[in-house]
Amino acid sequence: MDNFTFHIPTRFVFGKDAELQTGKKLKELGFNSVLIVYGQGSVVRSGLLDRVKQSLKESDIQALEIGGVVPNPVDGPVYEGIRMGREAGIDCVLGLGGASALDTAKAIAIGIPYEGDFWDFYSGKEKVKKALPIVSVLTISAAGSESSNSSVITKESVMLKRGLNTEFIRPQLAMLNPELTFTVPAIQKAYGIADMMAHIFERYFTNTQDVLLTDELCEAVLRTVMKSGPKALFNPQDYSAHADIMWASTLAHNDTLAVGRQQDWSSHGIAHGISARFSAPHGAALAVLFPFWMQHQLEHDVERFYRFAVKVMGLNESENHKETALEGIQKLRSFFDSLGLPHSLKTFGVKAEDLPQLLEDVKYKADGTIGFFKPLTKEDVLSIYKAALE
Amino acid sequence: MDNFTFHIPTRFVFGKDAELQTGKKLKELGFNSVLIVYGQGSVVRSGLLDRVKQSLKESDIQALEIGGVVPNPVDGPVYEGIRMGREAGIDCVLGLGGASALDTAKAIAIGIPYEGDFWDFYSGKEKVKKALPIVSVLTISAAGSESSNSSVITKESVMLKRGLNTEFIRPQLAMLNPELTFTVPAIQKAYGIADMMAHIFERYFTNTQDVLLTDELCEAVLRTVMKSGPKALFNPQDYSAHADIMWASTLAHNDTLAVGRQQDWSSHGIAHGISARFSAPHGAALAVLFPFWMQHQLEHDVERFYRFAVKVMGLNESENHKETALEGIQKLRSFFDSLGLPHSLKTFGVKAEDLPQLLEDVKYKADGTIGFFKPLTKEDVLSIYKAALE
Repeated sequence: MDNFTFHIPTRFVFGKDAELQTGKKLKELGFNSVLIVYGQGSVVRSGLLDRVKQSLKESDIQALEIGGVVPNPVDGPVYEGIRMGREAGIDCVLGLGGASALDTAKAIAIGIPYEGDFWDFYSGKEKVKKALPIVSVLTISAAGSESSNSSVITKESVMLKRGLNTEFIRPQLAMLNPELTFTVPAIQKAYGIADMMAHIFERYFTNTQDVLLTDELCEAVLRTVMKSGPKALFNPQDYSAHADIMWASTLAHNDTLAVGRQQDWSSHGIAHGISARFSAPHGAALAVLFPFWMQHQLEHDVERFYRFAVKVMGLNESENHKETALEGIQKLRSFFDSLGLPHSLKTFGVKAEDLPQLLEDVKYKADGTIGFFKPLTKEDVLSIYKAALE
Repeated sequence: MDNFTFHIPTRFVFGKDAELQTGKKLKELGFNSVLIVYGQGSVVRSGLLDRVKQSLKESDIQALEIGGVVPNPVDGPVYEGIRMGREAGIDCVLGLGGASALDTAKAIAIGIPYEGDFWDFYSGKEKVKKALPIVSVLTISAAGSESSNSSVITKESVMLKRGLNTEFIRPQLAMLNPELTFTVPAIQKAYGIADMMAHIFERYFTNTQDVLLTDELCEAVLRTVMKSGPKALFNPQDYSAHADIMWASTLAHNDTLAVGRQQDWSSHGIAHGISARFSAPHGAALAVLFPFWMQHQLEHDVERFYRFAVKVMGLNESENHKETALEGIQKLRSFFDSLGLPHSLKTFGVKAEDLPQLLEDVKYKADGTIGFFKPLTKEDVLSIYKAALE
């Protein structure tokens, strides 16, 4: 196990009607004004925005709002939110919706106290040194943004999707009501399931030795997601399944499962371009790419993929570990299939002639590779993209 | 899954030489003076106290100290620490050692800002409303006190051992270096293993339905403890095993594994008197009592004990769930045996004639029972004590 530091400052309020406590909880934290960031109107139509505003009003908290955030959120609303938040001198930024609203809220929260262009943080030009407090009222279980240190924004003018990781953007408060996720369309739930599983995979496939405890924790949550995920997808009123998935998506991405181990993140890195250029849903791109990444990386550590096949995918132990490992990857693909997830980049309209540009979009490390498990060269990435185009 | 709130404010610094960062981390949190609370001198002899003081000095943090805390800590050092801390106007209280030092530090931290007798909080007369910040430098993996909301103190004059639970006493900072636990005597490691497993059992045996995710998490950590625990015990230089156990003991008692489910705590409740009156090590008393508690409660939920037998104790699935459940309990007893833990209350000198007093010592709820899984009446407790005296 590697040395680590770990601190999740987020206060979680989980359960039925959690959102109605938003005002009260913000007041307890000493906040008096908030900028609400939301998406394309479903929170307006469902009445959720009104319920949250009513809760804020009851606690005498001033609220501004900005809507129009799109999936794979872009920089436009970030600039507008920064302008509005500065002008009103707000105390905190509340993402109302899914990861897109929250990732935008995070970008606004670091942009307000920064004199330069907020994109400097995403491009890697500057390090974040402060942020306004961030709050989440979540409506979809997927990205784990409600307690993660990440935010992903696409710069629209150049179609570059970039992730940022900094402890300054972990939300201070997360209101998690599983019932709010009942009405998420089934395919969106499937994207969410792929996303949370991918977050665990990025941590599970590691070179760090002797990480039994976090291996067990990762496997525990993966098995739960594979059991409760389909239930949530096919039974929109199943509270327990939605609750499992909601809390799993949080744990999947706040490092509870993965302290003290090297993480990979190359699959996310090579998926970003697919989303940015082809509007591929993040979870869908990951569902396509991850099994191909696994096949490509199998030889690097057959035993780890064998363990995955047995402990997570439920295959019987065998003599031929490599064969079982391959079956495990195939079974993962079948699981994704069963949720209606795609299995080829063709689904998003990607063509062979797009690959050179996609290869250029990838953010490689200084040594020209991406990831840590077995770092991918540009040739490796091309090989995975090609396999995923079959 | 029940509604829940969850917030772990603790900043964990985990790994080799973690204790050398104590001063730096305290400074980052804005503290300038600290009262160090420790036990019976092993931290002096090992040089740990000096290393921590040196680290504080390098960050210009004033340090006072109070030693002499005993296992199953008593109220004397608490009163003395409160007096010293008030007089010097210290900023925070640092427990250096195991749970006894930290539980004492917690009692001091709530006692300093309170005008009355700190025991009011443990007797249930008063609710905690504030506390000085608490810090831990841990030397034994067991109680999870480094991020739990609990503290247990014995009032020596009446030999009453009482637990307190309040969010105000979760430490703000925990320095966890597994190497500091290498030299813990094997039997103390065994007590710690029983203690952390018991913390999970108290959460695992629940009536709350549909808690798959936390069931899986509890089982994951229990399996890890049963695998890494003996390694740590029998191989005093095995860093990975000690690291697993150290982090497992933290997770076992900060509710990471058990949000949204009813907990029991009757086994701890009936073990406290054994420790208070017979100086039984806490983990040893739990190792004796828990298997008898399980047998006594088996009929209440055979399926849960069957699941435990299969998922945690590693027994094969079977037709006869009750028989397998019983085998699981027996296998747990054998596991405790293999660590050198006792299996009868006789070990502590308890005799049949002591039982009436022990029964009186138990802190029952208003309805005369203790626990929540299947609440124990006084007759139930007597029956468990009697079985454990065979």
